[in-house]
Amino acid sequence: MCGVFGIFNNKNAAQLTYYALYALQHRGQESAGIVANDNGNLNSHKGLGLVADVFTEEKIETLKGTSAIGHVRYSTTGINSLQNVQPIFFNYRRGNLAIAHNGNLVNAHQLRSHLERQGSIFQGTSDTEVAAHLIARSGYENTEEAVKESLSMLKGSYAMLFMSDTKLIAVRDPNGIRPLSLGKLNGSYVVSSETCAFDTIGATYIRDVEPGEIIMITKDGITSDRITSFPKRATCVFEYIYFARPDSNIEGLNVHSARKELGKKLFQEAPVVADVVTGVPDSSISAAIGFAEEAGIPYELGLIKNRYIGRTFIQPSQELRERGVRLKLSAVRKVVEGKRVVMIDDSIVRGTTSGRIVNMLREAGATEVHVRISSPPVTHSCYYGIDTSAREELIAANKTIEEIREHIGADSLAFLSTDEMINTFGERTDLCGEDKNCSGYCEGCFTGSYPTEIIEQSKFSLER
Amino acid sequence: MCGVFGIFNNKNAAQLTYYALYALQHRGQESAGIVANDNGNLNSHKGLGLVADVFTEEKIETLKGTSAIGHVRYSTTGINSLQNVQPIFFNYRRGNLAIAHNGNLVNAHQLRSHLERQGSIFQGTSDTEVAAHLIARSGYENTEEAVKESLSMLKGSYAMLFMSDTKLIAVRDPNGIRPLSLGKLNGSYVVSSETCAFDTIGATYIRDVEPGEIIMITKDGITSDRITSFPKRATCVFEYIYFARPDSNIEGLNVHSARKELGKKLFQEAPVVADVVTGVPDSSISAAIGFAEEAGIPYELGLIKNRYIGRTFIQPSQELRERGVRLKLSAVRKVVEGKRVVMIDDSIVRGTTSGRIVNMLREAGATEVHVRISSPPVTHSCYYGIDTSAREELIAANKTIEEIREHIGADSLAFLSTDEMINTFGERTDLCGEDKNCSGYCEGCFTGSYPTEIIEQSKFSLER
Amino acid sequence: MCGVFGIFNNKNAAQLTYYALYALQHRGQESAGIVANDNGNLNSHKGLGLVADVFTEEKIETLKGTSAIGHVRYSTTGINSLQNVQPIFFNYRRGNLAIAHNGNLVNAHQLRSHLERQGSIFQGTSDTEVAAHLIARSGYENTEEAVKESLSMLKGSYAMLFMSDTKLIAVRDPNGIRPLSLGKLNGSYVVSSETCAFDTIGATYIRDVEPGEIIMITKDGITSDRITSFPKRATCVFEYIYFARPDSNIEGLNVHSARKELGKKLFQEAPVVADVVTGVPDSSISAAIGFAEEAGIPYELGLIKNRYIGRTFIQPSQELRERGVRLKLSAVRKVVEGKRVVMIDDSIVRGTTSGRIVNMLREAGATEVHVRISSPPVTHSCYYGIDTSAREELIAANKTIEEIREHIGADSLAFLSTDEMINTFGERTDLCGEDKNCSGYCEGCFTGSYPTEIIEQSKFSLER
Amino acid sequence: MCGVFGIFNNKNAAQLTYYALYALQHRGQESAGIVANDNGNLNSHKGLGLVADVFTEEKIETLKGTSAIGHVRYSTTGINSLQNVQPIFFNYRRGNLAIAHNGNLVNAHQLRSHLERQGSIFQGTSDTEVAAHLIARSGYENTEEAVKESLSMLKGSYAMLFMSDTKLIAVRDPNGIRPLSLGKLNGSYVVSSETCAFDTIGATYIRDVEPGEIIMITKDGITSDRITSFPKRATCVFEYIYFARPDSNIEGLNVHSARKELGKKLFQEAPVVADVVTGVPDSSISAAIGFAEEAGIPYELGLIKNRYIGRTFIQPSQELRERGVRLKLSAVRKVVEGKRVVMIDDSIVRGTTSGRIVNMLREAGATEVHVRISSPPVTHSCYYGIDTSAREELIAANKTIEEIREHIGADSLAFLSTDEMINTFGERTDLCGEDKNCSGYCEGCFTGSYPTEIIEQSKFSLER
Repeated sequence: MCGVFGIFNNKNAAQLTYYALYALQHRGQESAGIVANDNGNLNSHKGLGLVADVFTEEKIETLKGTSAIGHVRYSTTGINSLQNVQPIFFNYRRGNLAIAHNGNLVNAHQLRSHLERQGSIFQGTSDTEVAAHLIARSGYENTEEAVKESLSMLKGSYAMLFMSDTKLIAVRDPNGIRPLSLGKLNGSYVVSSETCAFDTIGATYIRDVEPGEIIMITKDGITSDRITSFPKRATCVFEYIYFARPDSNIEGLNVHSARKELGKKLFQEAPVVADVVTGVPDSSISAAIGFAEEAGIPYELGLIKNRYIGRTFIQPSQELRERGVRLKLSAVRKVVEGKRVVMIDDSIVRGTTSGRIVNMLREAGATEVHVRISSPPVTHSCYYGIDTSAREELIAANKTIEEIREHIGADSLAFLSTDEMINTFGERTDLCGEDKNCSGYCEGCFTGSYPTEIIEQSKFSLER
Repeated sequence: MCGVFGIFNNKNAAQLTYYALYALQHRGQESAGIVANDNGNLNSHKGLGLVADVFTEEKIETLKGTSAIGHVRYSTTGINSLQNVQPIFFNYRRGNLAIAHNGNLVNAHQLRSHLERQGSIFQGTSDTEVAAHLIARSGYENTEEAVKESLSMLKGSYAMLFMSDTKLIAVRDPNGIRPLSLGKLNGSYVVSSETCAFDTIGATYIRDVEPGEIIMITKDGITSDRITSFPKRATCVFEYIYFARPDSNIEGLNVHSARKELGKKLFQEAPVVADVVTGVPDSSISAAIGFAEEAGIPYELGLIKNRYIGRTFIQPSQELRERGVRLKLSAVRKVVEGKRVVMIDDSIVRGTTSGRIVNMLREAGATEVHVRISSPPVTHSCYYGIDTSAREELIAANKTIEEIREHIGADSLAFLSTDEMINTFGERTDLCGEDKNCSGYCEGCFTGSYPTEIIEQSKFSLER
Repeated sequence: MCGVFGIFNNKNAAQLTYYALYALQHRGQESAGIVANDNGNLNSHKGLGLVADVFTEEKIETLKGTSAIGHVRYSTTGINSLQNVQPIFFNYRRGNLAIAHNGNLVNAHQLRSHLERQGSIFQGTSDTEVAAHLIARSGYENTEEAVKESLSMLKGSYAMLFMSDTKLIAVRDPNGIRPLSLGKLNGSYVVSSETCAFDTIGATYIRDVEPGEIIMITKDGITSDRITSFPKRATCVFEYIYFARPDSNIEGLNVHSARKELGKKLFQEAPVVADVVTGVPDSSISAAIGFAEEAGIPYELGLIKNRYIGRTFIQPSQELRERGVRLKLSAVRKVVEGKRVVMIDDSIVRGTTSGRIVNMLREAGATEVHVRISSPPVTHSCYYGIDTSAREELIAANKTIEEIREHIGADSLAFLSTDEMINTFGERTDLCGEDKNCSGYCEGCFTGSYPTEIIEQSKFSLER
Repeated sequence: MCGVFGIFNNKNAAQLTYYALYALQHRGQESAGIVANDNGNLNSHKGLGLVADVFTEEKIETLKGTSAIGHVRYSTTGINSLQNVQPIFFNYRRGNLAIAHNGNLVNAHQLRSHLERQGSIFQGTSDTEVAAHLIARSGYENTEEAVKESLSMLKGSYAMLFMSDTKLIAVRDPNGIRPLSLGKLNGSYVVSSETCAFDTIGATYIRDVEPGEIIMITKDGITSDRITSFPKRATCVFEYIYFARPDSNIEGLNVHSARKELGKKLFQEAPVVADVVTGVPDSSISAAIGFAEEAGIPYELGLIKNRYIGRTFIQPSQELRERGVRLKLSAVRKVVEGKRVVMIDDSIVRGTTSGRIVNMLREAGATEVHVRISSPPVTHSCYYGIDTSAREELIAANKTIEEIREHIGADSLAFLSTDEMINTFGERTDLCGEDKNCSGYCEGCFTGSYPTEIIEQSKFSLER
């Protein structure tokens, strides 16, 4: 996962992008970068780490320009990962071009092989480089046409920003898997992965970029076009469940409200008698509040997250961990001791963390621990950018719910059903055409049914 | 405010202190330090900034020793502030001594003048140095007796740790204003400002250090003594209201539970008809949950705090701030739009922040904003270490509640009464003796009635 | 100017490259980089600054591999200069390739335009990227053939190293303008811009790479080929005069000895009666020693260079400079006071520095200052990598020797003649063929007669 | 060894001190510090490392004030060495005081024990702290009288600067072992360990501070006093031989000129037939030039020092060192091959380095290596701040000259005689009184005869 932000026609372009990246930081903490365009001169700064680690006041001041794009990137490994930090940018026959990409291309591997045979050279392993070469090799004189031609070759998920010497181009894949919103700040246009960045910089939300839409922003204003005749909405449900910030709205639906409603539905589907409800911070808090409200059981801070554990934190040795040194999360004994506890989490991926938290609550004196998950069991891998692990590691792909319950040591365990989840979000069938099974969401990780062709080897083989 | 931690007889002394300081980080983000004792050799590392900024794995490894004390310190200003970073340590005729101090001495100024006249030299402006010189000049051969003699001259609040070549000494002032707890970790004793540090490192809570108690920990075990014949409990109520971590217990009372109960009492005292309840993160969340529960009004995340804004954050210019760039806190439009909102905060000091949040909620569409404060109006300065500003800056010292309401732009405003606050915590009169007005708490900032003599100039004049 | 180093088949490849770069540091202080090849995996670290700034022990340890190439680069400007740090490396259809380049391509601009029209994208402005694209687009399957084909398109000066997954390739342009030597270290082959790097790492010098020679080093040993049928030696004389380290040998001639001999010839051509001889440190010391020896005048340290002034040095303000704050160089009053001083310098480019030093010597009490330059007047620009400024800035292109003398304030001024300079180095006509005017050296900066075609705009227009 | 600098009444006080410390950097590379006095407010910055590492432009800008003192310190070890970085400064009954000290107190240990018994506390192990406590405890109201009283208790070598809220005080021990000079810069007075700092900042030398003199600089001008009635000059000869910068003058004698003269005398005393003379850079260059001139043998750069090896340099492993990796110094094969070489060094302490260089010259092809040392054999320890090792490590304390020659592998070896050394510098008997053996120099390390009482244990026992 990643977050992207762009701004056009603003004298504080880089600084506002910097603030926006703070608001999008939860979408990626591995690296951060900003490229600003000063009348055709690109000024850039990128680095590994948090926005706060990468940028200083001095650095921001060097990023002169009236348009800018920024990027935050999710954790991947690899010694040479600095090569992969976005936005990428380069000089080519049409001038400069910078690209910021949130998503995952499922046919990057094939396209790259094809390009290499034609003499292209690659700096890193990011699939975004593939798009860069396609654009450079396009016969069209016009950047916008070259971008459209190139996108027609890409498969997978992408919310992408392109900044040329004179334009800012925003595009969303034909399924609109990753979110992208358009806003306005006085005379400037802004685009962002999430609307929370608009609130942060005082911009006004206009609308979401549509699936398969390409928006061109120039000094003459804004124009819109389609990159496909057959868009088909398939919004990622995990953005609502886990990934996005509670104060963001995706396709008009507020994330906190959606999560709280998931919690309410979860109680309706899987009620339990208990003394307290607690949520795993931070992403499950909203669902836990909803569950507690619906159940009439007190909502408590039974689990506390340490806010200061960052990247430079020195991990305890195995020995200390076994002796009970617990840094990131701790159970509040006085709250759970002697109580029947409902522990709400947003999802179970591999089951390791859930088991650890159940155990922590029991050691703090909980007499019963009932686990309720505000989404369905994750049974399939994601190919569109959410790091849900390989299928063999997904506990729900290999065990029954009863087996999972036993594995994590809970007194009871229940998941929300896919139907109730979709009901909560509300079906969006406007672009479904004739497809009766189309809900308007990508539920691939729960059902194995994906909105695009999947080319299996592509996901892992690119990291060589 | 500050946090202190000590450990005796543990081969991972420095590393466990490092983890404990992470748990106490909320008590002070200005500086951090650890001194370890390796059979009479002190190894130390201190620095400005967060624990994560100050310590690296390499640094921790140099801190060899089987006992250690650590300190985190709250923000003060001054170019030379590195001089004031704790623990302080020095070499003198009894060997080495390291000191970590949470609290504020009200007669430090007089004692310092006296010591200077006798030829003492001072590195910084911290009042802890005064204690160091008193101990060095004491005629007693024994460290423990020298400490006791010196403490008898100190007035004010202190939870202090002393580490000599062979001992760890923990002491709390005769009123027990600042908290200090004793715990055990296998064969090691631990002392900490808050019990949350015990949970973090897997230690077991034994009991709070008593007001006026001095505890000596040596290889032969633990002994206890009194530094006064007339201790009189006056626990700081602000530790419960605002300062301590929700999962800590002070004098046996859990902070989250106490805050939630304050929220319930607050609704009982000052009910309101509204659509949603929201709390100002993080310290007011518990009270907001309690208020909502008691009121039967939905509790919502109406305000979101950005978790990534740290010390290195580049502040927006005045111009950008006026244009609505808001980084630390944002209101969730979809949650508050068209709603009557109850905004719970733990206290109002100068009124500036409250006014800004009320305004933010209105701009996000709240039709009514009712402010409820889960503590009484702060009308007097604190002389014991809480940074509540000079009296002339305290809004409640100068305005009526109605005037404050108008100032912050709320539709209604109410504070919790002092009586209900004390009722919530529960009177602790075991050390009150004959005093009928004694509740067992220091309520000086609400009432102007302080547990010790106050020497007015001392607070500010030391910073020269 | 730059320095390159490569090593093949050594388990300490990166570490030895690191030491070699220390020995070549005088050739470039702007940036440093090492790429190591670990069985087809490239590990790289590069950065702006000195070798000592860029590399740490931890970084060197990550550079696993049994072959490596390194690069130090001379000062250029530009915010995005990190993009230009060498070695450059990339992934393409033949696997990985890393390139380190010392020299300057005079037709880079045309080649780049051509490549851009074909869809190539560029990361920076370095002409080395042009070579990378040519190799990637070559139809040959074999790296070595692709390199040869590409080099046939390049014009200018280059001593270049290419490291593929299985080979190390070293090549020198058909004129051999920049130096490149081959050596051996036990079972490993090494190549270096200067032989001083061999002494540093304990390697044995084998021979210089020949003009127009390409050397392939694989696990099966070493093979040599020609990239041109008509090589024509034109060794840069400035390497001897100013640039190379005194302990290096270029084409078998030791640099210190050559410089000392220049000094002797200089006295023969332009004798002077004086009390002391002093050289401008460091590059003119050898010539000054030779001059003094030939003249029988005492050689003295009349000018001292501060060894600690580095990149992070805070420059004095204009006001302080005018008040006489002089950091880098100072005249020794006791040595020059009341004396007739001969000041030896290796060259005069713009005349500013010389004037400043003459003035400094006078202020320190010198009664006469006679300037002797151990090379001819620089009247033309260099297009092969020496930063001799644009022609309009060259003082000798615009003024007579008498005018220069007046400009710098010397009592007398003389330059060495081109003939005596070449005599000192010794003519090398082995590759001259029929050309009667061929001396075996490039004297372009003194005569305006260059060994290759010059495409005027190329030098500056690439830095856009 | 250390270097000190002070300036009074200059608006650029800190910046000029910073430049002066660059000029004194050769006297200490372990740490650097500046304290500036802004009308009674001290602003300070200190750190481990070179001046260039410790100071940034931002830091210098915070050092506001019109007087300042600075210090560079020579290498000592110890984890807590930051505690010992100078200038030290503190607050006491007379206000603020900062101290910078070059030298070594031989009775620091006794004084410290005495002070500890009276209740003094110590931050580090530096003997300068002892002086601080003595001043604080002095009964005199006046800083200057308190300083004088304290100095009367100190034994050993000291060139010391004291900066109070209103004064700058400079003092030199009764023997004047360490150098200290007074200068003027427009309306400001400056004091410096060496005169090279005056040249750097454009100041004019006035005179050396006299042995046993105390100089007080205030806004009313300069006054001078004596701290002893019986000063007796004993200038350290090692300052001339090895330590000071060639462009400095000590007691009116230029260091380069003195060294060159030592080289001439050395040839007269110990002539040799050879082909080339080379000096060990940097401190032996002047003597080598003198030797070559007197002998009529060519002076050559036979040994080259790498200028870029700094503190952050990664040392080669034992294995690489054995394989011939040589970074700091290298022999120039073309210069020494087949030649009879005279290698000039300034001194032999333990003999290890000399042996290594002789070996290096032989490996580079020298047929004979004749070692000539421009000072007498070091047979005794220094107690005044020069790090000449304990006596058992001094090779000349334990071996005859012939044994040393064999040990270092030279063909011949000779030292300069003590008599010729003193003749070269010139006797300075103005303060000798009746003492017939008094030359005006401290020759303790050559003769074992010291100008002050020596208290053996003091040198090492303080570092506990």
